[in-house]
Amino acid sequence: MTAYRDTYVGDLDADAAGKTVTIAGWASRIRDQGGVAFVDVRDASGLVQVVIAPDEVPELADVARNLRREYCVKILGEVRARPAGTENLDLPTGAIEIAAKTVEVLSTSQPLPFQLDDAVETDELVRLQYRYLDLRRDRMAANLKARSRVVAAIHHNLDSAGFMEVETPTLIKSTPEGARDVLVPSRHRQGHFYALPQSPQLFKQLLMVAGVDRYYQIARCYRDEDFRADRQIEFTQLDLEGSFWGQDEVLATIEAVVSDAVEAVRSAPLDLPLARMTYQDAMDRFGSDKPDLRFGMEITELSEVFAGSEFKAFASVVEGGGVVRAINIGASETSRSHLDGIIDRAKELGAKGLVWMVIEEGGEVRSPIAKFLEASELASITIAMDAGIGDVLLLVADESREASEVLGQLRLDHGRPAGHENLSFLWVTDFPVFDVTPDGGLVPAHHPFTSPRSVEELRESPETAVANAYDLVVNGVELGSGSVRIHDPAVQQEVFDILGIAPEEAHQRFGWFLEALRYGTPPHAGFAFGIDRLVSVLQNEPNIREVMPFPKTQTGLDPLTSSPSLVTAEQLAELGIELHPEVRETLEAHPAE
Amino acid sequence: MTAYRDTYVGDLDADAAGKTVTIAGWASRIRDQGGVAFVDVRDASGLVQVVIAPDEVPELADVARNLRREYCVKILGEVRARPAGTENLDLPTGAIEIAAKTVEVLSTSQPLPFQLDDAVETDELVRLQYRYLDLRRDRMAANLKARSRVVAAIHHNLDSAGFMEVETPTLIKSTPEGARDVLVPSRHRQGHFYALPQSPQLFKQLLMVAGVDRYYQIARCYRDEDFRADRQIEFTQLDLEGSFWGQDEVLATIEAVVSDAVEAVRSAPLDLPLARMTYQDAMDRFGSDKPDLRFGMEITELSEVFAGSEFKAFASVVEGGGVVRAINIGASETSRSHLDGIIDRAKELGAKGLVWMVIEEGGEVRSPIAKFLEASELASITIAMDAGIGDVLLLVADESREASEVLGQLRLDHGRPAGHENLSFLWVTDFPVFDVTPDGGLVPAHHPFTSPRSVEELRESPETAVANAYDLVVNGVELGSGSVRIHDPAVQQEVFDILGIAPEEAHQRFGWFLEALRYGTPPHAGFAFGIDRLVSVLQNEPNIREVMPFPKTQTGLDPLTSSPSLVTAEQLAELGIELHPEVRETLEAHPAE
Repeated sequence: MTAYRDTYVGDLDADAAGKTVTIAGWASRIRDQGGVAFVDVRDASGLVQVVIAPDEVPELADVARNLRREYCVKILGEVRARPAGTENLDLPTGAIEIAAKTVEVLSTSQPLPFQLDDAVETDELVRLQYRYLDLRRDRMAANLKARSRVVAAIHHNLDSAGFMEVETPTLIKSTPEGARDVLVPSRHRQGHFYALPQSPQLFKQLLMVAGVDRYYQIARCYRDEDFRADRQIEFTQLDLEGSFWGQDEVLATIEAVVSDAVEAVRSAPLDLPLARMTYQDAMDRFGSDKPDLRFGMEITELSEVFAGSEFKAFASVVEGGGVVRAINIGASETSRSHLDGIIDRAKELGAKGLVWMVIEEGGEVRSPIAKFLEASELASITIAMDAGIGDVLLLVADESREASEVLGQLRLDHGRPAGHENLSFLWVTDFPVFDVTPDGGLVPAHHPFTSPRSVEELRESPETAVANAYDLVVNGVELGSGSVRIHDPAVQQEVFDILGIAPEEAHQRFGWFLEALRYGTPPHAGFAFGIDRLVSVLQNEPNIREVMPFPKTQTGLDPLTSSPSLVTAEQLAELGIELHPEVRETLEAHPAE
Repeated sequence: MTAYRDTYVGDLDADAAGKTVTIAGWASRIRDQGGVAFVDVRDASGLVQVVIAPDEVPELADVARNLRREYCVKILGEVRARPAGTENLDLPTGAIEIAAKTVEVLSTSQPLPFQLDDAVETDELVRLQYRYLDLRRDRMAANLKARSRVVAAIHHNLDSAGFMEVETPTLIKSTPEGARDVLVPSRHRQGHFYALPQSPQLFKQLLMVAGVDRYYQIARCYRDEDFRADRQIEFTQLDLEGSFWGQDEVLATIEAVVSDAVEAVRSAPLDLPLARMTYQDAMDRFGSDKPDLRFGMEITELSEVFAGSEFKAFASVVEGGGVVRAINIGASETSRSHLDGIIDRAKELGAKGLVWMVIEEGGEVRSPIAKFLEASELASITIAMDAGIGDVLLLVADESREASEVLGQLRLDHGRPAGHENLSFLWVTDFPVFDVTPDGGLVPAHHPFTSPRSVEELRESPETAVANAYDLVVNGVELGSGSVRIHDPAVQQEVFDILGIAPEEAHQRFGWFLEALRYGTPPHAGFAFGIDRLVSVLQNEPNIREVMPFPKTQTGLDPLTSSPSLVTAEQLAELGIELHPEVRETLEAHPAE
């Protein structure tokens, strides 16, 4: 195929026996058996065993002696069946080997800083520093390939469906409130800054105004977060929008795309349509807006049972407008210390308290509060919770939302399967327009361009108004979210009003966008989901860094290139900026930095 | 298809007559004929005529009166053949019209700041300020669509061929010499900066080290240039690289990709393989490393004719090691003032002088220098230049490169077709490794990772050493360039040595990359070409801004969002930077900015 090879090693099987082939790749493992070198040669397609036998080909004596791991080699040889009994059934090419006639070392390798064996744990900082070696490992190579397949499947699906891929700019306007904006100083207009986009949201809405019917983009986005959990300063999302669309068109489109993406990696498409659940249902039943439906343990409402009971601590919560809810975590350890541990966990999660019940042999309920409850009340509880012998029940009394959220977390603690062997996709719909902040203020639950289900409802009770907004969830992981957008500038202004953004402020921040809405904006709706997140779930990886070719650490450092790095005062002067004096002093005090 | 429509208007033809359809789009033109409104409704697929006739449907009286241009409407109506004689043959849907039964105004439009008619010239700043309206114009909508098709064709070609799309990071290490780097201050490591990539060059080479066999990416790149000609601070390229590859594999891959891209827009693939020419040939014959082969006017060597001639000005140049060369620009205006204008132009291009010759009726040569030349010399010239009656010849005497470059430009002045109706693709190969600067220094002609054809040649005569480097040219426009890379760290070090980059400096700037080369780097080669440039040629557009959805001006301004913009001192303090005092003073003195 090229000057360096005529065969990928992964294509070799028993049928190739007798053929002379030229391969190129890396010496992955080398075993010396009495002067004969058995070399596993790896290329992008797989692995094959090469036999370098100086007793048969004397010219190979030097290379058989000097070849080292990860040398890059070109080998011409004859494919032959392995001697009976030496086949390797674990290897697709395990029935054959290549008897080398010539071996050319294309480049040598220094000793490796770590073993490339997937079984060996290596510190992540070292892996990132030598990412080009880390990516040679089977697991990482498979992750890169899976990511590429997912993206190709997305392109194929949407290109075939008539979507237009449009590139929106990445040096955009920074907004005064853009606390998470990554800023870029302009050289031509000193003192002025661009921002890198957190998403193409407003530009894709402009494309709808522009008459682009169906848009998508695999978009690089940026968010300068306090690095927590599993985020990166740059990440990638599928961004999508359609004109004259409502929620149904978005959901159907995304379902088809995700099904193709899943099939590209997991070999089977999804059963469509995907399950749907309202936000309220998800909160009530699973205590989460991204419920993991791979297991039950639904939240059960017990307020009525406790409303009139003698257990005053719970009864008074119900009388005060609160709730008593519970989950049945099934057969579980029932030692006092273990159950106390669950109470501690519940407190850590913000619960005022938690009560456990254990269904003993014979059906008796063991619980610190059993003595306060009548037999009929205990029976109501066990029936409502479908509780059997050995089951452990966890009860929480609190305000509705708090009780659900704590139980939702405990549910995950006790029920959630490790990894993502099975996939359970779910649409969560009918999100609220606003979240209420602890001080009673309103902030957009999604973003301020999300349309309300009803403008009347928005005006009359904004804090409970429902939006045309929906999330896609898999195995309890939020993949992405979308909404039907506001296309009427008057409604957009009302939302700004409710958010307490005065017309002048709205004009200053979004004036150019509000202006655009005034020229016959079509109804439109869209979605965005995280490619990194989807691939990490499909590849069963614990974090998105494992499916990114060159990720940064949690603090934004690239150990491979030592980036970010210092620049010269002259470079900064060209941009019209300088370091803050304190920063400069700190750097001067630590010049090694 | 959606709640808003069941038909795209572009799908309607005579066969649809009698059907009831629902369409959605914009009122593109409205003509009132005695109370009946004839409305051209536009959607992404095309245009259709809708008749709103209050005399037939009284409920439509209001909308017929109040509908304005660019209102967004949903219309239910019956498709019917247009009355005989009123068909519009220029319009694909011109045989039919829709008789409206209901018209719903989905959103109104303010009066437009400019007409959307392609025939009307609008100032580019205004077009960019209202880009969402500008993109509604047929020409711009076609450009967006063509761009999307080109990118889809690239994806389809390379995905099918087994390439892996890999995303390389865009917040990368800034290099001290990176004068054109766009810098990004880090919030987490104050005083440190990322850079946005000028290309994914080093990361794609790392992917080769990592064992990725064939890589591509549609990559956003950034260059903070002094905005001249036709550049943008952010642009997009197809970036591609293969392991165990030489030049042949790159050229064959790119040819197939470009052919598919051309076919996606121009309906016909290219004749492959594309023409090839060495850099030296291109310079000698066309005076350019990106010759436009749509026309002849090749440069003719006349040094021998003048070497012994009586025209001493030319003879002495040849004796001094220079050359005399000429082009035949064919039948052209022969007035003295016109010919003097060409002399002025040649001087402007850096020529020491230019001599014209006109072949008069009867074959006589009219020229200021005719009297210095013998008849046999004049005959040699006309024969060498294949000159016929009326032809104008332009002769330049200078150093070889200067003469060729001036003639190359004059050739374009007089021969280059306007626009890009026909496409003439060409590979220019065998570029030099280095360019020689006016002061005799060496700079990489391509980039310092380009492999020399021969290491011996590189050592012995670096200034003339030939590289494994190649450009793709269409109609005299450079689309992209590539090379076989250096995969041997020792050779890489030699190139740095010749460039005068000391080992310590090389280590500081590229240490991490040199380190990577030491772990069994495969031979590899690749290419990158500009998507913006290719699409602008295919769409016959004069500049790349016309094929970018939201370009910036030549000075990096976005008139739509007024970006770049001011940010707060607090935002800057978070990044550990502040404005240069002079910049701050300037801004304070002009607060309107």
